[in-house]
Order: sequence, then structure tokens, then C-alpha cells
Amino acid sequence: MTSDAVPVVGIVGAGQLARMMIQAAIPLGIGVRVLAEHADDSAALVCPNVDIGFPNNARHLREFAAKCDVVTLDHELVYLDALAEIEAAGGVVRPNAGTLRYAKDKFYQRTEFKRAGLPVPAFAELLNFPAIEEFAAQHGWPIVVKSQQGGYDGRGVWILDDAEEARDFFDATAGTGVDLMLEQYVRIERELAVLVARRPGGETVTYPVVETVQRDGICHEVIAPAPVSTEIAERARALGEQIAGLTGAVGIIATELFVVAGADGDELWINEVATRPHNSGHFSIDGCQTSQFANHLRAVLDWPLGPTDLVAPFVVMANLLGEDRESLVPRIPRALDVPGGVHPHLYGKEVRPGRKIGHVTALGDDAEETRARAVHAAAVLTGRAT
Amino acid sequence: MTSDAVPVVGIVGAGQLARMMIQAAIPLGIGVRVLAEHADDSAALVCPNVDIGFPNNARHLREFAAKCDVVTLDHELVYLDALAEIEAAGGVVRPNAGTLRYAKDKFYQRTEFKRAGLPVPAFAELLNFPAIEEFAAQHGWPIVVKSQQGGYDGRGVWILDDAEEARDFFDATAGTGVDLMLEQYVRIERELAVLVARRPGGETVTYPVVETVQRDGICHEVIAPAPVSTEIAERARALGEQIAGLTGAVGIIATELFVVAGADGDELWINEVATRPHNSGHFSIDGCQTSQFANHLRAVLDWPLGPTDLVAPFVVMANLLGEDRESLVPRIPRALDVPGGVHPHLYGKEVRPGRKIGHVTALGDDAEETRARAVHAAAVLTGRAT
Repeated sequence: MTSDAVPVVGIVGAGQLARMMIQAAIPLGIGVRVLAEHADDSAALVCPNVDIGFPNNARHLREFAAKCDVVTLDHELVYLDALAEIEAAGGVVRPNAGTLRYAKDKFYQRTEFKRAGLPVPAFAELLNFPAIEEFAAQHGWPIVVKSQQGGYDGRGVWILDDAEEARDFFDATAGTGVDLMLEQYVRIERELAVLVARRPGGETVTYPVVETVQRDGICHEVIAPAPVSTEIAERARALGEQIAGLTGAVGIIATELFVVAGADGDELWINEVATRPHNSGHFSIDGCQTSQFANHLRAVLDWPLGPTDLVAPFVVMANLLGEDRESLVPRIPRALDVPGGVHPHLYGKEVRPGRKIGHVTALGDDAEETRARAVHAAAVLTGRAT
Repeated sequence: MTSDAVPVVGIVGAGQLARMMIQAAIPLGIGVRVLAEHADDSAALVCPNVDIGFPNNARHLREFAAKCDVVTLDHELVYLDALAEIEAAGGVVRPNAGTLRYAKDKFYQRTEFKRAGLPVPAFAELLNFPAIEEFAAQHGWPIVVKSQQGGYDGRGVWILDDAEEARDFFDATAGTGVDLMLEQYVRIERELAVLVARRPGGETVTYPVVETVQRDGICHEVIAPAPVSTEIAERARALGEQIAGLTGAVGIIATELFVVAGADGDELWINEVATRPHNSGHFSIDGCQTSQFANHLRAVLDWPLGPTDLVAPFVVMANLLGEDRESLVPRIPRALDVPGGVHPHLYGKEVRPGRKIGHVTALGDDAEETRARAVHAAAVLTGRAT
């Protein structure tokens, strides 16, 4: 990076995370370039510097990286070997392929976390049918099956209730070539997330621990601060920071945690990690002094990080999940009219049922009222309420 | 505006105000198009939809307006007759030519405000030299001379101390064709500003009244809330709202006020109005629940306005005025490292001495510390401190 020139951050992928990074880049005076698959991708709509290309194409990644001072990512579905090559050739990729592997390869993540003494559910590779029976004998039914690579928002995760379901599942998936793993089923009291921003040298800032309210494996609401004891929040925070260091994260790393009732009180178990800005941190755009997107950019540029304090006692984010294929536009004024005020964030994506097309954030002095306001505004925007 | 399509707001001019409107447009899912004079104008650097053209060219304005659902402005230096024609032909221009005239033509503004009973300094047209002598005889020396059109940041304003200076000034300017006006010199205790966002139907929201700290006619700092009595703040607010209605403003209208010691306590006099987002409202990006740029866009689209509450007890903005021609980039990390945290906003403009190249905002619990932090960070960014 030549020190006098405006630094250019390249983002591989042009989804809503890239879009929100672009919003955060404008005040910092940073140049942003995106590698988009389509010219109408969420971030490509708001970026003057768009390259069309694919994140699993080594040549596209190389040519893109050559135009950027630092490369970062909108998602993990990227050809890691190509990123490693770019880095070996002197390019700056943050987070790098070593860190990304924790998010991309769940079996690797579980193995490494277990080795480090971190609290993960019991797990095993699904190599053959007897492996399922053996795992169930040890940990009981139901058991969870996950694809080792990819999968998010509930995709690539199955719950098997008994040996019969397991047999059907195994027969259906055997020979598909998808690497699967088994995991102990955990009875969840609630789910938390903790976001850490980390610079290359190890300096970190941590966001307030939040509760994520999930339905069918999809996050619907995020509540900041999480309604848990200070002690649980502190443990969550410590786990997030330990994982940031262990994975060598640069930028935002999100750790999703299960709260589980144990014999000696609540326990925390690690669910997933995402080595990039994360849905559980969208509340920070309106709700914190420095958003996760601003701190992600600052971290990947190795610039000092900003304070993460909440700017209101309670901040609630509700995702907008498409209900139909109707345009949201006529509903925007109605959502803006919700008493108390909300902050809509629309991603410029075509509406499809179940698709994340935006989110809305509410700030307030009362936990219940703030949550109700965010949820109501989300219902208005998705057409479930007027 | 077809109600299902993403609305496109066209901004005439591509300076920093347009740039910050673009930042505010991203979460709202609004399309933005700018009419820029140069491809490297502040807002053109961050906008994928740029038309190159001139704000005083009727054809450029017409062609631009045809691509937009609503046209708004980055500055007032626009050919008003062309805007009026666009409106007459069914285009939507907000604010319209009628409102813009209050900002563009100071003599008109003073005349209309006086007629409405609003507190303005005594004024007269400068038609000939005896007019100066007569005005001075009535109001005393010094007297202020202003160009009736244009002029901002101290440009187009002169102070004449006595008859000799007045003679020299008159001889130097006579025959230049610039329309001038005389104004009573006002001994200012402090300067305030009040921003109102107004919808076409008259609904308004008002921002907390701020103090603007000026040196040589240029705003250096903005302090929110203004350190004045509740009664003065309420009067300032009422004046701002009255002016928003009187001018038929749509979007942000900023009223700058003088606080003057009168016989019966402090008086408020109207200094200037700007019928667009204004430097005195930049604090609202980080400091208020809804920024002036978001509320400007919401108002020009006739969407409900958002809450204007401060998100911290004290918010201070300091302008970045170029000291040299050095790149700011190497100084950004040092500014981000200022203890307590600041929010830099860089406009992507080449640095020139005296040029406004950005601003920085600090939030805090202590008025003095917050101001010192903002001022220090500004000094770091402009190279006056390390």
C-alpha cells in the first residue's frame, strides 16, 4: 500500500455485506472495488467500481486482487487455494485462507477447536452407516448431520431422530460425494453471538454480546444487549476473543454460541464461526458508535479500531425475509411511519419467499417496546402487517 | 413516481453534500443519480450513476431530470428558471425554484423575511454612493456589504469601517455589474443554527439547535446541543420552523442565527438560510438517530421523517480545512487512534489550503472533552498536530 494514495479495498462477492461495507467506506474516504457475479448484485448497484467474475475462478480472483491494496470477502464460498496463492505472491488477503478454513470447513473447525480445549459438541466424520449407529449409541438420538463444507441459514444441516431415519438419510446421500459429519444434538436454551474485530497485529475490540432469535435455522431477530447474566456475557466475550486469536482472524469474526442448561448452571457451546461481518452484527450500524462494517474495513487496512459501545440502552434488529414477490417500495413509507422510528436497510435484492432482502433496526429505552417496534416494522415491510 | 419501482433521486451537483446523501440512500434502498461537473467530484467518486453536466445549463438540467423521479440539489448555484420550467413541465424539483430563491437572492430573502415580521438586520440596496452614506448615518459604521446573489463561507461579504473605505470599495466595484446590498453591522455574541426537515405537505422535524463556531466567516466547529438557555433554543427552533413554512421548503432548510445582546436580554437575528443539507448539520450523521441526509431524502420523496434525537449527551463536529496540499491518507490512522474515538468523514477532494476536505465528529458525556477531542482529531487530520 503506497501510503499517500487512497487505499482500495477489494471485496470478493457483492451481496449485502459488501453493500454495507461500501456505505461504511464512504466517510472513511476509502476506495472500494467489488468482484460481483452479476451487475445487479446488491453491492454492485451502489458501487462505481465493479468487476464481473466468480469467486471460485482463480484467474478472476488474481486479476481482481491486482487492482486492490487489500482483498476481503463478502462470503466464504471462495476458492481458498487461489487466495493462498495471491497471498504467497505478495497480495494482501484479509482474512486469509488459513482463517477462512475455520468458517468453510466445519470438521476442521471442530477438530481444531476441540484440540484447543474450546467447548464444542461431540462430533465425528460420517464415513459409513455403522459410524452413525456408534455415534448414536454414545450420544443418544437425535443426532445432527452437517455437510462439512458450505451450508448456512439452516441449509446443509439435518436432524435424524432414530435409526430408521438415519438409514433413509444415509441411503439417500451415500455416493453424492458430499462430505458429512455427525454432531451431538444440543438442547438449546438460547443462542448468542459475539463479534470481535481484530487487526493483523492482534489488537481487538469486541461488540456487546447479543441474543440471536432463530427459527428453522434462520436468524429472525438480534437483541442487544443479550438478556443474560454479566457472567455469561463475559464468558461469551472471552470465547469470541479466544477464537479471534486462535483463527488468526483479521476483520470481523462472529462466533455463534448455544446456551445449554448444564448440571452446574448454564454452559456455552460453540455453534458456528463466520470470519467476516455477520448478520448478528447488523444492529451495530445504527446501534453502536462504530459499525461492524467500519471496523471490518479499519481492521483489514490495519487502522486503529473504533469504540463499540451501544448508543441506546436497547437495540433490536429484525431481518426482512421475503414473503412473496411483491416490491417493498410502497411499504417503505409505512415502515418509516412506525411510531418511535426505525432504521430500514434494504439490500436492493429482488424479493423471493424466504430470501433475506433487508433488515430493520430499532433503538429504545425499553427492551420489550424496542423489540416489538422492530418486529412490527419488519412485518410492515414484508407485507405481513399494515 | 411509479409506486413499485425503486425511486431515483437526482442530485444536481456532486460535492460532499451529494456524497453524504448517497451514503444515506444506500440503506433506504433508493437509487441516486448525480449531475457532476467532473468525473472526480466528491460524490461522483462513490456513485455508479453519474451524468456529466453543468447546473447552469438548461439542457443538461432537463436531460438529467428526465432520468429521475425527483430532483434535489447539492448547492444553490443552479439556473432557477430551468428548474421552474422542469417543474412546470411536470417534473418534481424539491426544493423548488421558489424556495431556492430565498437562499440564492439575499435581498429577496431579507425583503420577504422583513415583510413577515422576522428579525433581520436593517438592509438596503446599494444603488449609489449616497445610499452608503445615508445608511451609515442611520445605522452607524461599520456597515456590511453583501453581494445579493451567491457568496458563502465569507465570500461576497465585506465590512466597511468608515466613509473612506466605503469610497474606495464603491469605486472598485462600481460598474462590475454585481448587485450589492448594505446591511447593519451586528455585534454577535455567538452564532446558532437550526435545521428543519420538511415534507411537501408541511410535516416537519427539527434538529437540536447547535452553536456554530466561525472564524473569518468560515464554520470551524459545530456544538450540539448549543450551550444556550432553553428559552433561546426554543426561540431559535420556532424561527427555523417558521422559516421552513414561509419558504415552502422541502427537504432540509438550515437557518443561521446571530445571538445579539439586546436591551432586554439576548436577541436572535437571522443571518442566512440554506435550502439544503448544511454544514451545521453534519454532526447528525453520527450524532442523531436520523441524519440530516436521510431526512432530506425522506422529505424530498414525501416519506415520513425520522427522529432527530441526539444519541449522546454532547456531539461536536470540526471541519477539516486544508492546510497544505499533502495527502490526508497517512494521517487517517493517527486520527482514528485519538483516545475516546472520533468519526472522520473525508470527502475525497484534493487538498488545498482553506478548502473544506472533510469533517470529524466526536460523541461524549462531557462538553469540553468532546469538543477538545473533535478539534484535536481535526488538527491531526490536517497536519497541525500529530
